[in-house]
Amino acid sequence: MVKITISMDEYRDRIRRVREEMARRGLEALLLTSDKGIFYLSGFTHMTTERPAILVVPQDGDLIFLGPLLEADHLKHQTKIVGDVRTYIDYPGERHPIELFAAWLTELGYGKAKIGIDNPAGAAGVSGYTGPPLNEKMPNVTFVRAGDIVWDMRLVKSSEEIALIEESAKWGNLAHTLLQEYTAPGLWDVDISLAASMESSSIMKKALGADYEQIRSGRSPASAGFRGQVGWKSAMPHSIGIGEVIRDGDVLVTGAGADVGGYNSELERTMIVGEPTPKQKRYFEAMMKAQDAAIAALRPGVKCSEVDRAANKVIVDAGYRDLIRHHTGHGIGLDGHEPPWLDVGNDIELRPGMVVSCEPGIYELGFGGFRHSDTVVITEDGADVVTYYTRDLESLTIR
Amino acid sequence: MVKITISMDEYRDRIRRVREEMARRGLEALLLTSDKGIFYLSGFTHMTTERPAILVVPQDGDLIFLGPLLEADHLKHQTKIVGDVRTYIDYPGERHPIELFAAWLTELGYGKAKIGIDNPAGAAGVSGYTGPPLNEKMPNVTFVRAGDIVWDMRLVKSSEEIALIEESAKWGNLAHTLLQEYTAPGLWDVDISLAASMESSSIMKKALGADYEQIRSGRSPASAGFRGQVGWKSAMPHSIGIGEVIRDGDVLVTGAGADVGGYNSELERTMIVGEPTPKQKRYFEAMMKAQDAAIAALRPGVKCSEVDRAANKVIVDAGYRDLIRHHTGHGIGLDGHEPPWLDVGNDIELRPGMVVSCEPGIYELGFGGFRHSDTVVITEDGADVVTYYTRDLESLTIR
Repeated sequence: MVKITISMDEYRDRIRRVREEMARRGLEALLLTSDKGIFYLSGFTHMTTERPAILVVPQDGDLIFLGPLLEADHLKHQTKIVGDVRTYIDYPGERHPIELFAAWLTELGYGKAKIGIDNPAGAAGVSGYTGPPLNEKMPNVTFVRAGDIVWDMRLVKSSEEIALIEESAKWGNLAHTLLQEYTAPGLWDVDISLAASMESSSIMKKALGADYEQIRSGRSPASAGFRGQVGWKSAMPHSIGIGEVIRDGDVLVTGAGADVGGYNSELERTMIVGEPTPKQKRYFEAMMKAQDAAIAALRPGVKCSEVDRAANKVIVDAGYRDLIRHHTGHGIGLDGHEPPWLDVGNDIELRPGMVVSCEPGIYELGFGGFRHSDTVVITEDGADVVTYYTRDLESLTIR
Repeated sequence: MVKITISMDEYRDRIRRVREEMARRGLEALLLTSDKGIFYLSGFTHMTTERPAILVVPQDGDLIFLGPLLEADHLKHQTKIVGDVRTYIDYPGERHPIELFAAWLTELGYGKAKIGIDNPAGAAGVSGYTGPPLNEKMPNVTFVRAGDIVWDMRLVKSSEEIALIEESAKWGNLAHTLLQEYTAPGLWDVDISLAASMESSSIMKKALGADYEQIRSGRSPASAGFRGQVGWKSAMPHSIGIGEVIRDGDVLVTGAGADVGGYNSELERTMIVGEPTPKQKRYFEAMMKAQDAAIAALRPGVKCSEVDRAANKVIVDAGYRDLIRHHTGHGIGLDGHEPPWLDVGNDIELRPGMVVSCEPGIYELGFGGFRHSDTVVITEDGADVVTYYTRDLESLTIR
């Protein structure tokens, strides 16, 4: 059977490793407020809202959840790893959830403990949430910032995580194939995106079967699009704003991915509509060479900064120093962007199991942007490019 | 011409009002790190990533932006209200952005100032971002938490904002009409959702014309769907997880909306597939009565808590106290959820211009969930239900 979720064994192993690190730091519990941190340890996914929620990792025994009532049944349906579930009706409530959290944590024996927490507020704190920080409500507790425990674990992916990312790349590839197939002058970018996303999601779900569940809320299971990077707007890497008609001569920068067990992959391509001009060709080739150089540099023991320098060198040597707008890449997994950063300022060494996007770009305002992004897994002795969509200009020219 | 963005006059007025409040608090500048806060004052929308970004509101003169290089051209394209734009190449960089921010703010004359800030970290702090808090890097500055200045303004909507929410409701209505039209036993919920979202987005964009720009990243311009609330899973209000085939006898809880100038509306309906059972009818009717009671209570001067109590009373009197899972509603605007909260614990009084969802619900695990949500604008002498989709059981039965 195709792998579309993380196994219970792996969740148990993650919790074991968290507890080892808690012991090293002398923490009696670890409290997580971030949706991804909670999901990483428990398999419970939820929409982050104004309603505070905390996953408590005790030194032993089942995990404990403190949160809104509307998540109680949902949590019990999604995970068996959590034991005690304590809920408040809603936020802000007649008694503020943070006061309840403080009371419950005291009941649980943590009233004078040393506790790790990813956010001393005790809440994700979005959507206009207001409330007293949890650490102010528990003055006898020693709160220690410890969000790095889970982030450090997430930095290196397990074989199960890599399998999900590879599965994601497959459906991203389908979504992108349809996107390219549907792209033609005269069409609106959003129509093309939605058609490709819809068809690929539908096929993906039918292929993966009834066990497939979407973990990320609000997007389609598979998706492909342009995110506004159409024509001259492609020169803005994070362009938001749609409504561009595709025209002959346009440079397009695409993006595609899919949610498999909450994990994502990244596939981006530069496409040219109509016969590429000499200038488009020059930028495209320089971008490809920069990406080749970065991919060639990706292997265990190499510093992230060196990969960024390798890509930048190609762009600078081609005379396009002023057309750089961002670094070479970022980690990818549960978050679309996560550590490690392929950035001149990041000297951590690559390790087997790290997964990164590789996407140096060249951008000229008023003209266009040129960027491919591939998802790359660092292996024991090199790197494996998980993305297999064609990269050459001829294949990416829309005629 | 149909109104699809906030006017420059309104942006200028918002900045003027912020400055009045800054003066009252003796603040020499206000620093905003949240994407919605930045958008609310400048009209600049961006994807929140690990890269720190700050909008500086000085006491006078143009706004100032400190952020990543890849947003510079994008910002200049989207807004003329920002003057000085200072950028770093990328995060974490050879010099950390927060150190650059501290240096730039000092250059700008704020080295010993009293400054308001929505987040003393000086960064949104997502995606595994790490960095020193800005306030630690500027020990001679008095930082005062002042995110409430913008949140208080957002609490009461202007006529321009209400016009965008009303326009949003129109396209949410179309998306939902198509969703209902396409819903039939044997189909997968995700296929129905994506088809309705695609078709409504395409039509919306063609109707609104080339000036329409999507402000929220990652979703379709208009959308409708079930968010996993299909059959017994409808009993979980924030169910995530799709892949349910619609079956005869199912209870479905829907949701639809649209992004108009960054503003949203909320339209949710309970639909029954096939002839409703007596129990389904009882729950549906109780839910409708609770919503009627809440809508009747919505008017200026009434406390938010009273609205929640009015809805709860109907549900409790019907004998369903244990089937309540959340409060009656929330504010809506740039965020899908925002203050004011229609919650027993919230005693603030409703004021003309507040916009809320009204959505008391009844949920029985293993059976189904029953909730309509309508978007309601508080007027000078009552309330205006912006959502006009049919609400009665007969209209919402899929035969």
